[in-house]
Amino acid sequence: MRPHVVVNVAMSADGKISTRERRQVKISGVQDFQRVDRLKAGADAVMVGIGTVLADDPSLTVKAEECRTHRLNRGVDEHPVRVVVDSTARIPLEASVLHKGPGKRIIAVSGRADPRKTAALQNMATVIIAGVDEVDLSLLMDKLGEMGIRRVMVEGGGTLIAGLINAGLVDEIYTFIGNMIIGGKDSPTFVDGDGFIQESLFCRLTLLETRRIENGVLLHWHVENTETKK
Amino acid sequence: MRPHVVVNVAMSADGKISTRERRQVKISGVQDFQRVDRLKAGADAVMVGIGTVLADDPSLTVKAEECRTHRLNRGVDEHPVRVVVDSTARIPLEASVLHKGPGKRIIAVSGRADPRKTAALQNMATVIIAGVDEVDLSLLMDKLGEMGIRRVMVEGGGTLIAGLINAGLVDEIYTFIGNMIIGGKDSPTFVDGDGFIQESLFCRLTLLETRRIENGVLLHWHVENTETKK
Repeated sequence: MRPHVVVNVAMSADGKISTRERRQVKISGVQDFQRVDRLKAGADAVMVGIGTVLADDPSLTVKAEECRTHRLNRGVDEHPVRVVVDSTARIPLEASVLHKGPGKRIIAVSGRADPRKTAALQNMATVIIAGVDEVDLSLLMDKLGEMGIRRVMVEGGGTLIAGLINAGLVDEIYTFIGNMIIGGKDSPTFVDGDGFIQESLFCRLTLLETRRIENGVLLHWHVENTETKK
Repeated sequence: MRPHVVVNVAMSADGKISTRERRQVKISGVQDFQRVDRLKAGADAVMVGIGTVLADDPSLTVKAEECRTHRLNRGVDEHPVRVVVDSTARIPLEASVLHKGPGKRIIAVSGRADPRKTAALQNMATVIIAGVDEVDLSLLMDKLGEMGIRRVMVEGGGTLIAGLINAGLVDEIYTFIGNMIIGGKDSPTFVDGDGFIQESLFCRLTLLETRRIENGVLLHWHVENTETKK
């Protein structure tokens, strides 16, 4: 069974997740950071695309000690399994996600990945080969499900999320909307890729909740027509 | 005195105002349409960029008879003054905005506009020349203020709104967020242009209100640091 997939992102009031130079920016505050940390602590795996690793070098660890202790008490690892979707194995061997904090790592690559690089990665992570030219996200989710992963939190970026939405793999979306305009026609948004052309094919959502947090607002959406594809 | 400027846009949950082909899409429903019509009826002028005219051919008229009657009873024209920002006078002479419904039109052009085209436009609209290569939006707002326009509603697109925000000319922003994902790295957002690069220069907002309307949510923002620039 495929895992339940929750996307969590922070965007500006005009829908940007960073500047056109893809520099990481502060969109939310402490309170939202804690919400995201708890959401992460509740997941079996945290997933990002290689673009996010290259731009931000995140560790994808659970930050609050309380949350980590709670996980250990539940009999699971301190941090969720960290999954990087990286079709051509571009991840630097010194990336934080491979080194910071204990726990399992999975690097998902395609058949195009250099076997020498994947061999090197195998010392630090489980390498899953899924797909010929690009990572087949449905196949990857199947494999994660087989490994006992029931709940995946996706933190970005826009290319990975677009792929997951196109494949009908996303169940819920949290968007925190911060009180700033970033602007820019080339600034990334949380669903990039090619986009839908036909209105009848747009991915439809149901708004479950709106909650004001600090100077912004959190929207919680359910994604329609996902279940049938699973 | 420069007019008070209110931006009103509808975007998808991922921050897009249309598809990458710039095809007009239905993001909001009847109830939000009525809110926008009332907002328009309360403005002295409605402004759009030439891109929006070329893509959507809007008439920019007030639709509800009740709102039009109310305007006439107030002693003003049935429709607000319609303003198109069009640096090189690309507007087709048959554009709906020039023909549908009674009332004043203003086409704002720069010194680059072809004088023959502006002469032809002068039969249908007031042509304001402001700026050398591009319309100088601050100067345009000064001129609109001198004409007695106190309140301007801006309906798009992303290039015009980016210019207005960069010039510190926007006071309020309404964003209706609809329950769909459009996606696409090349799909337009409501603040396109170059975008801000430095976090310290981001345009800052204050969230005044969030209101659920039909299947989406309306966010009402106040733009900070605008007044000082007026």
